[in-house]
Amino acid sequence: MLAVFDDDATIAHALAFEGALARAQAAEGILSEDLAVAIVDACVTIAMSPQAVAEESALAGTLAIPLVARLRASLRGEAKAAVHKGATSQDVADTVLMLQTRAAAALVLTDLDRIVHALGDLAIRHADTPAVGRTLLQDALPVAFGLRLAQWGAGIADAARRLRRDVADHARIQLGGAAGTREGLDGAGSAIASRMADELGLAVGEPWHARRIGIAAIGTSLAIVIGAIGKMARDIALLSQSAVGEAREPAIAGRGGSSAMAHKRNPTGCQIALSAALRAPGLVATLLAGLPQEEERGLGGWQAEGPVLADLFLLAAGAAEAMANVAEGLEIDEGAIARNLSQAGIGTDIGDSAAIVRALVARYEG
Amino acid sequence: MLAVFDDDATIAHALAFEGALARAQAAEGILSEDLAVAIVDACVTIAMSPQAVAEESALAGTLAIPLVARLRASLRGEAKAAVHKGATSQDVADTVLMLQTRAAAALVLTDLDRIVHALGDLAIRHADTPAVGRTLLQDALPVAFGLRLAQWGAGIADAARRLRRDVADHARIQLGGAAGTREGLDGAGSAIASRMADELGLAVGEPWHARRIGIAAIGTSLAIVIGAIGKMARDIALLSQSAVGEAREPAIAGRGGSSAMAHKRNPTGCQIALSAALRAPGLVATLLAGLPQEEERGLGGWQAEGPVLADLFLLAAGAAEAMANVAEGLEIDEGAIARNLSQAGIGTDIGDSAAIVRALVARYEG
Amino acid sequence: MLAVFDDDATIAHALAFEGALARAQAAEGILSEDLAVAIVDACVTIAMSPQAVAEESALAGTLAIPLVARLRASLRGEAKAAVHKGATSQDVADTVLMLQTRAAAALVLTDLDRIVHALGDLAIRHADTPAVGRTLLQDALPVAFGLRLAQWGAGIADAARRLRRDVADHARIQLGGAAGTREGLDGAGSAIASRMADELGLAVGEPWHARRIGIAAIGTSLAIVIGAIGKMARDIALLSQSAVGEAREPAIAGRGGSSAMAHKRNPTGCQIALSAALRAPGLVATLLAGLPQEEERGLGGWQAEGPVLADLFLLAAGAAEAMANVAEGLEIDEGAIARNLSQAGIGTDIGDSAAIVRALVARYEG
Amino acid sequence: MLAVFDDDATIAHALAFEGALARAQAAEGILSEDLAVAIVDACVTIAMSPQAVAEESALAGTLAIPLVARLRASLRGEAKAAVHKGATSQDVADTVLMLQTRAAAALVLTDLDRIVHALGDLAIRHADTPAVGRTLLQDALPVAFGLRLAQWGAGIADAARRLRRDVADHARIQLGGAAGTREGLDGAGSAIASRMADELGLAVGEPWHARRIGIAAIGTSLAIVIGAIGKMARDIALLSQSAVGEAREPAIAGRGGSSAMAHKRNPTGCQIALSAALRAPGLVATLLAGLPQEEERGLGGWQAEGPVLADLFLLAAGAAEAMANVAEGLEIDEGAIARNLSQAGIGTDIGDSAAIVRALVARYEG
Repeated sequence: MLAVFDDDATIAHALAFEGALARAQAAEGILSEDLAVAIVDACVTIAMSPQAVAEESALAGTLAIPLVARLRASLRGEAKAAVHKGATSQDVADTVLMLQTRAAAALVLTDLDRIVHALGDLAIRHADTPAVGRTLLQDALPVAFGLRLAQWGAGIADAARRLRRDVADHARIQLGGAAGTREGLDGAGSAIASRMADELGLAVGEPWHARRIGIAAIGTSLAIVIGAIGKMARDIALLSQSAVGEAREPAIAGRGGSSAMAHKRNPTGCQIALSAALRAPGLVATLLAGLPQEEERGLGGWQAEGPVLADLFLLAAGAAEAMANVAEGLEIDEGAIARNLSQAGIGTDIGDSAAIVRALVARYEG
Repeated sequence: MLAVFDDDATIAHALAFEGALARAQAAEGILSEDLAVAIVDACVTIAMSPQAVAEESALAGTLAIPLVARLRASLRGEAKAAVHKGATSQDVADTVLMLQTRAAAALVLTDLDRIVHALGDLAIRHADTPAVGRTLLQDALPVAFGLRLAQWGAGIADAARRLRRDVADHARIQLGGAAGTREGLDGAGSAIASRMADELGLAVGEPWHARRIGIAAIGTSLAIVIGAIGKMARDIALLSQSAVGEAREPAIAGRGGSSAMAHKRNPTGCQIALSAALRAPGLVATLLAGLPQEEERGLGGWQAEGPVLADLFLLAAGAAEAMANVAEGLEIDEGAIARNLSQAGIGTDIGDSAAIVRALVARYEG
Repeated sequence: MLAVFDDDATIAHALAFEGALARAQAAEGILSEDLAVAIVDACVTIAMSPQAVAEESALAGTLAIPLVARLRASLRGEAKAAVHKGATSQDVADTVLMLQTRAAAALVLTDLDRIVHALGDLAIRHADTPAVGRTLLQDALPVAFGLRLAQWGAGIADAARRLRRDVADHARIQLGGAAGTREGLDGAGSAIASRMADELGLAVGEPWHARRIGIAAIGTSLAIVIGAIGKMARDIALLSQSAVGEAREPAIAGRGGSSAMAHKRNPTGCQIALSAALRAPGLVATLLAGLPQEEERGLGGWQAEGPVLADLFLLAAGAAEAMANVAEGLEIDEGAIARNLSQAGIGTDIGDSAAIVRALVARYEG
Repeated sequence: MLAVFDDDATIAHALAFEGALARAQAAEGILSEDLAVAIVDACVTIAMSPQAVAEESALAGTLAIPLVARLRASLRGEAKAAVHKGATSQDVADTVLMLQTRAAAALVLTDLDRIVHALGDLAIRHADTPAVGRTLLQDALPVAFGLRLAQWGAGIADAARRLRRDVADHARIQLGGAAGTREGLDGAGSAIASRMADELGLAVGEPWHARRIGIAAIGTSLAIVIGAIGKMARDIALLSQSAVGEAREPAIAGRGGSSAMAHKRNPTGCQIALSAALRAPGLVATLLAGLPQEEERGLGGWQAEGPVLADLFLLAAGAAEAMANVAEGLEIDEGAIARNLSQAGIGTDIGDSAAIVRALVARYEG
């Protein structure tokens, strides 16, 4: 996941944007085929130092300036002026961010599927196993042990569906030009944007320089994913307490040790997920606070979004991978479950647990 | 909007829950028709002091305890025990919150429609009016004055659509019983929940006591609505600056005065919206932070959600109403627009502005 | 605590501001003694409907406009014009908020002292009692049971100290006039502000209309108080789990019952504190996000602060009172402590626990 | 600033911790001088790949495990077991974070001093220059142009003082051992912690593994610093608007250009500061949300703090440096100031502005 957002990937996506722009302009007849070929070739073959570009970008406040300068320096004649024509820095930055969003979401969704399937299997297996149900951290009434697993899975499945839909809806091409009017494209701006979206695999739409709802939507969906995973992690951590002992994480080499107590097995997958769940809400608050951006393109608002969205994806990916491993290897201690239930003295009537488990699991694919 | 969340409404919804529960149990044959009629009658006719119930609820930590106690006291014989059978406090609290959510969302959506339609009309009217486009708070290139109006409207329309969908999906009946197993309902829990959902006008589903994604989803949609309105407010406030003067809020009697400078007309509609936009992100952070609730029903998490969701609706309603009035009465100064553009010396080429305006406005109904 | 922030208190404080302003102007010789007496009398004797004033305030966007209008209507001749002279709406609003802050902080600090003293006594009493120490939610090594109590107390004492200091430093008079220049006060603005501060019991300083660090500081201190209480609540809730049983909340009539399981004793004091701890961070985020307010007096920023600061005080007061009751009545089960330790098989070496307890408790008064 | 938090610095601080621990144990007579020398030598001379250690740390969930393993591998005989004796992973992690905090705060405070001094000079210079005062984004009454500069400076000076104090109070040694009891140190834990604190330049105190108020306090102080800088940036961005033109950022080579409009000078220093001000509140919310950590050492809470505190320092450092450059080179256009004031038609009475400026600037050193 780090590779999705690193400097190499960022530059590669930005070059893909410039190449797609040239190709689309040629297809619409506002750039000669020769110039387009020259630009596309440059985008494919140019070599640049990621570190040098990153440093200049930090100073310039935008990647496009040093990148376009290098492209121009590598071209000759009219091609120099034709590069990046009709586009503005934010067009590049936003399109790159959406390409990274699409790639990152695919990674997260794969691990979410792993979790959901593993939990579904476990839930069905334990759909009739009576266990202590706990409310307000007190023993309450019996539940099927599989019921809580099914509930975790339903939450994660719903959250995954929401993320998938928001990425499909909002991972859009950005092409507006300096003030969002698609000026300088001979009236072909809409057609060019469509062609670029097709080539880059993004959705199409009007410029959205200062209309940041898509970013906020994707960010909130990620936080909901992280929170749904956090719910599962909170419960597994509680079930793993020494005094409860109904479940514990699988052992993973090199993970979960203690520098002072070598015998301990710590719930480090849960730790990763709970730590992510602690961080995500504040990051989303930033994306939401940034919505009222100024005028045609704002000051400070959209510049804050890139690192925040990347952090959310990194947290989601870390949490999803850790808990996928936990779900696939979860150790359930049926003896402890029975023993705790017997000590609670609350009987074994699990009501409709089994039917609810089946209904929840059936919805996972929905 | 205050009335949607006040003590009277809360009690009325809670009684509707208890009545619907009895009726559904009778329909499923697990409660005699006579007892159901007695309970439903009591729910309709019982009088109770909202303030006294509120005080006891605060102490008990839940509305259901004092409310059910009063219902029982008003009934005789077997009906006493039959009230609230199979339900838990949180079933009542969550269902009440969802009934309030549905009512509150309808109010907000009505004002959002007002904004979107008013902006659509204004945007089309000014689709060809050249104006200064501004980026990073600097004059940049010309845009159609209507383009920014159309962008505001598109953001608000998208946000409204998201809110409508999330409320439809997640305003669900809650019926799980003490540990979420629908114990004590003779296996008819699912059918009873369906009947209650139909009667109360809510969506149906499995118990969601500790799976709070729906609450989080609705909360994030509200914050995105508020942010989209905040974007409009930010821009109108900037356009209203004395040195710019391209637009200003309509005058409203009793609003926008200054206690020290009687001549001033302050952008108080924008103030309300911007203040809401400042508060919403932190409230959403709370809902997201509460997702990892403990076990079958958590401690502290869901109890925090009610007031936070109510605050979000109050802020959204205040902002939507204020900006609906602004949108419908917005004073646009074409002379100032032309004068500023001329002084900027950036020509009058507004690119594809008009086409983009039409495309954006066409999407409002989508 | 609700009374500190209700409409009656708000109006009373606003009238105190206007009276103090007149008195200070007379003392500085820029208002005749007769006029000052007339104004002060009016401030003391005027009756107004809190609800009517609140409604007009909501419309006007500020309390000062309807309140000053009523004062003027109750006065005759020159006194009409002399009321509120040199002040602006925000002067009134900010001074009122600081008067409420001072009163609210005193209430909270009293309950924090109760907690700290009760915990100090318990910690000393259990300074040598070996118990299971738990890390990452796993049994780890022995600790004195009193050590964790002493740690809770140290956190709360530190947080209380911080709150006390921030309120002393930042609960300041606001007197700047319309643009923060103290115009219209014949050069006596600073002296008048000092006299008003003395009379009202606030700190003095230059106008701070758009310099909101004091508000943010007080808000963050409150959130740290709430978090420190939340730490104690989290631990007591964990210790109260049925499988642990080392401590539990005292029983309080009418509190902690369950509508479905009458035998259960829920940790509702902890619930109140944990719910507060969930809500405070988002509220603080709002205060911090509001710091970059525009120009001499901003739009939307300071208007958001009042309700947010009031919410933080209400949450802090609710949490402090609930946990003061818990601390003073905490039921500690020494048998369960010993039994759990024995089952853990980790010996009884509690290291320097007792010395650390004494060092922590000694710092409580610091 | 990046160097303060990079892997090299982290490892160096961790080795300093282990060395100081050995030295302090020798001084207290619980470790032989020879073994201490061997360990200190190893800490000074050992070479390790930052990247390899970082990867193993990520897996283990803590830096101490791979680092101590390498130290042990480099030592012989009893020294192997003596390394890290009495300490736990979190002791190392927290102490390292506090060492980084101290270094990072010094960098930030240096740039804050630059801002405050530059603003103080400018404020005095313009203490009598009448300018338009603006409230609610509307022209209001005249103010001295220097008054708003003095207000910015006062806010930043107050925030810097708060940060300095919080770092002095809370940048503390952590030495508690596995459960916070200083077990295994022969009763010398307190003396060892004092010696280590002296050597490392940190404050001393009892273990604070699950008492995280110091971290939260430092984080809130950083966010207040960032907000105070953001206030200055917001105002300069507004003053720089083309239609206002009263001030603008100095030109910096390579910064502030536009990829589409080469002639534009964008306020990129303000952009950096405003972007930081947007991100800080959410990060602080995370630190506050993490206060209720579980038991002796929590799960997920403290693990989230390190990256969040580092982000806050990076944002503060970026904003402080950018706005120090802006303050030192701020271009003030007296002609525009006079012209705007004349057009506003609000006279030139700046009240007590000059006296307030002097009072504010006098407080900068306080």
